[in-house]
Amino acid sequence: MRVEIVAVGTELLLGQIPDTNSQWLGERLAANGIASHFHQHVGDNHERIVLAFRTALARSDAMIVCGGLGPTQDDITRAALAEVMNVELERDEQLVATIRRMFETRGRTMPENNLQQADVPRGASVIAQTRGTAPGLICPVGQKVVYAVPGVPYELTDMFERAILPDLLQRERAAGRTAVITSRVLRTWGASESGLAEAVGERFDALAGGGRMTIAFLASGIEGIKVRLTARGDDAGHAVALLGEEEILIRELITERFGDIIFGVDEETMEDAVATRLLARGATLAVAESLTGGLIASRLVNVAGASKWFRGGVVSYASEVKFDVLGVTRGPVVSASAAEEMAAGVRRVLGADVGLSVTGVAGPEEQDGQPAGTVFIGVAVDDSVEHVLVHLPGDRPRVRAYSAISALDALRRTLDRMN
Amino acid sequence: MRVEIVAVGTELLLGQIPDTNSQWLGERLAANGIASHFHQHVGDNHERIVLAFRTALARSDAMIVCGGLGPTQDDITRAALAEVMNVELERDEQLVATIRRMFETRGRTMPENNLQQADVPRGASVIAQTRGTAPGLICPVGQKVVYAVPGVPYELTDMFERAILPDLLQRERAAGRTAVITSRVLRTWGASESGLAEAVGERFDALAGGGRMTIAFLASGIEGIKVRLTARGDDAGHAVALLGEEEILIRELITERFGDIIFGVDEETMEDAVATRLLARGATLAVAESLTGGLIASRLVNVAGASKWFRGGVVSYASEVKFDVLGVTRGPVVSASAAEEMAAGVRRVLGADVGLSVTGVAGPEEQDGQPAGTVFIGVAVDDSVEHVLVHLPGDRPRVRAYSAISALDALRRTLDRMN
Repeated sequence: MRVEIVAVGTELLLGQIPDTNSQWLGERLAANGIASHFHQHVGDNHERIVLAFRTALARSDAMIVCGGLGPTQDDITRAALAEVMNVELERDEQLVATIRRMFETRGRTMPENNLQQADVPRGASVIAQTRGTAPGLICPVGQKVVYAVPGVPYELTDMFERAILPDLLQRERAAGRTAVITSRVLRTWGASESGLAEAVGERFDALAGGGRMTIAFLASGIEGIKVRLTARGDDAGHAVALLGEEEILIRELITERFGDIIFGVDEETMEDAVATRLLARGATLAVAESLTGGLIASRLVNVAGASKWFRGGVVSYASEVKFDVLGVTRGPVVSASAAEEMAAGVRRVLGADVGLSVTGVAGPEEQDGQPAGTVFIGVAVDDSVEHVLVHLPGDRPRVRAYSAISALDALRRTLDRMN
Repeated sequence: MRVEIVAVGTELLLGQIPDTNSQWLGERLAANGIASHFHQHVGDNHERIVLAFRTALARSDAMIVCGGLGPTQDDITRAALAEVMNVELERDEQLVATIRRMFETRGRTMPENNLQQADVPRGASVIAQTRGTAPGLICPVGQKVVYAVPGVPYELTDMFERAILPDLLQRERAAGRTAVITSRVLRTWGASESGLAEAVGERFDALAGGGRMTIAFLASGIEGIKVRLTARGDDAGHAVALLGEEEILIRELITERFGDIIFGVDEETMEDAVATRLLARGATLAVAESLTGGLIASRLVNVAGASKWFRGGVVSYASEVKFDVLGVTRGPVVSASAAEEMAAGVRRVLGADVGLSVTGVAGPEEQDGQPAGTVFIGVAVDDSVEHVLVHLPGDRPRVRAYSAISALDALRRTLDRMN
C-alpha cells in the first residue's frame, strides 16, 4: 500500500502554520512499514482540492486527507470527496444527534452550520468523533480508499491510531502482507552521524537491500543523534525477537567504538536519564549557566516531577555574577577552574547535593583567548568537583544547544561512574 | 504566476525532519503577492521525482524545488530536471573550479563526487553558491520555469532573496503585472486573535474582496500575535504610502481598544523591545524565574549585545531557593508579595538596576490555592517594586511560554511609564 498524505488549508500554503500533521503521519506510517511516496498541501478551494485528490489517487493506493472538516464555509473537504467519489452528500441523522448532544453537554448553543459536519458522502463510513465535533470518514474510491480526518492534531492522532492504522493494516493482511513492524530508537550523544554510520557499517551493509531489518540515523539537535532500528517480522513475537537481537549487535558496535554514548531508548530524553540517576541517588541538583543562559534549567523543569530533585539555578551571564554570587576566583571565566568553581558554588549557594555548570564561547568572536565552541563543563558531587572540556561546532544557537546536552551528558556519566 | 513548491527528500516523507522550507517559501511568496496553490513532498527516487515535477508543471506556472542538489548518490534532483527538460547534463568547468577552490580555501581535500554539483542541465542558468558548495539552477521548461535550490535553509533563503524572488518579480512585471507588494508586521501582546480581528473589523470589512490592502492575523506563541498588513501599489512609493496610511488607522483601532499592546514591528521581538529600553536608560537587568525555569533568561541572551545590559538570573524552582537566595519571606510562593520580593531580591543579589520575576502555577494541578495559569510578575526598578497578575490559558508548556512573554511585556510597559 502506498499512502499519499494531502493536507488541506490555505494557511499551510501561506506558511502561517507548520504542517506538523504530515510529518507525524509520515513517521507513524513508516514505523508500521507502510509506504508513503508523496505528500501534498492544497488551499481551501474546491477545484484545486479535487485536483489534488485525483492526483493522489492516480499515483497512490490510499490517501489520508487532513483538514477542511470543520463547521465554517472554508471547510469544503466533504464536498470535494463527494465529487471525487461521484456521489451525493447525505446528512447522517445519528451524527446530527451526536453533535447536538456535544453542544448540550457543554451547555452551549449549537450554531446551525455545525450540522454540515454530519454530511457524509454516500457509501462512506464514519470514524466516530471522541475529541472534537467533526467525525472522520473512510471513503472507498474504486479499488482505493480515502481517509479524511480533522486537521486538529489532538483529533487527528486519535482517529489515526483508533481507525485508520487498523484499517490499513487489515488491508495489508488481506493482501497477504502479514508482516508486523516494530521499531526502537537508541538515543546517542558523543559521536557524529557519519561516525555512527561507520561504526555500525558492517550491520548496515548486511541489512542493505531491504530485508527484515533497517537502520536509520537522525541528527536531532539538542535531542542527540537517534539510531532507529525497524524490524519486519512474521508476527509480533518474531518482530520483537528480531529487534532484540539486532539491538544487541548495534549496541555492541557503538559501545566498542565510542563507549557509553547511548543515553536513552525511544522517548527517553537526556533530562530523563539525568532525572532517573538523581532520583536513584536521592540527590538534588542545581545548575550554573553562562553561555547557555538558562537553557539547561528550562529543559530540566520539563521533566515530570522535577520538583523532587531540581533546586534551581543561577544564570551567571556577567562575569561579576560568577565572582560575586558563585564565588568564582577573579580571572578568565572560560576556563576549567571557573567551571569547577561555578559548579561547586551553585551547589553551595542553592543548597543542592550536585552542582552542574557550563561556561564557554558561543561565538562568533573568541573570548579569553579561546575560540568559539570551546566549552568547559563543571560537575560537583558532594565535595568532589571535576570538569570536562568540549569543542562544539556551529553558530551561536547551535553551540548553546550542544553545550546544554553535553553538560547533561557529562552529569549522567559522572553519576554512573560514582555508583 | 502560480508557483508550486516541491520539497525533495525521503526524510520528509518519513517524518524525520519538519519541512520548514515550504513554510518559509510560502510565507515569502505570499508577502510578495505571488500565488502558490500546491506544495508537494517527494522522496529520493528518480521516477517519482520526475512524476512530481511533471505534476507541478501541469498545474502551476513555476516551480521551486528544494533539496537533492548535494554531492551524494542520493542527490538526484539535477538528473530529474534534465529529464523533465529533455536535455543532457553538462559539467560546467567554471563551477568545477569554484567548488575546487572552496575546498582548497578550507584546507580540505575534495572528494571527487562533489563535482556532480557542477553538472547543469543544458539551457539552465546557475545561481552562484555563496554559502555552500551546491549552486542553484534556473531552468526554463517551455513557457514555464523551474528554480532548484539546496535544502539547507541557510543556503536556500539566500538564493531565494538574491535570485529567485527578483526573477519572479521580473516575470510578473514582464507580464504587465507591475504591482509592487510591501508588507509590515505589527507585533502585539495582550489581546486574543479574535479580539484583534474585532477591533480592526471596520478596516477588515472595508478591505475585503481583494483590493490593494490585506490584513492577516497570526498567533505565534511566545512571539505574540502578529498583524500583517500587505499593500499592493502601482510602484514602490505608492505601496509604501498605502501601507503607511493603513498602519496609522490600524494602530489607532488597536490602541483605542487595548492600549499599548503593539511592542514591535516586523522582526523586532519582545526581547529586542526590552533591550532597547534598558540601553536607553543605561540600566542592567537580572531575572528571577520560578515556573519558567530559565526560559526568559535563555531568550534574553539571544539578543545581540545582551552582555551590555543582562547580568543574569536565578532560577528559583524550589521554594527554599526563593527564601534562602532571594530573601523571599517564608509563606505561599504563588503570591504578589513573593513576586515583588523575588524581583527586588534578584536585583540586589546580582547587582542589577532592574529586577524581573515570575512565579505562578504551570498546572495542571493548583498550587497555594491558585488555579493553573495564575502567574504573578514582579518588576523592581531601582528602589520601587510592583507586580502584575495575569491568568494564562493552555497546558504546561504554553503557560510557561505565555508567562515569559507576559513578564517581558510587563517590564517593557513599566520602563515606558517611567520615562
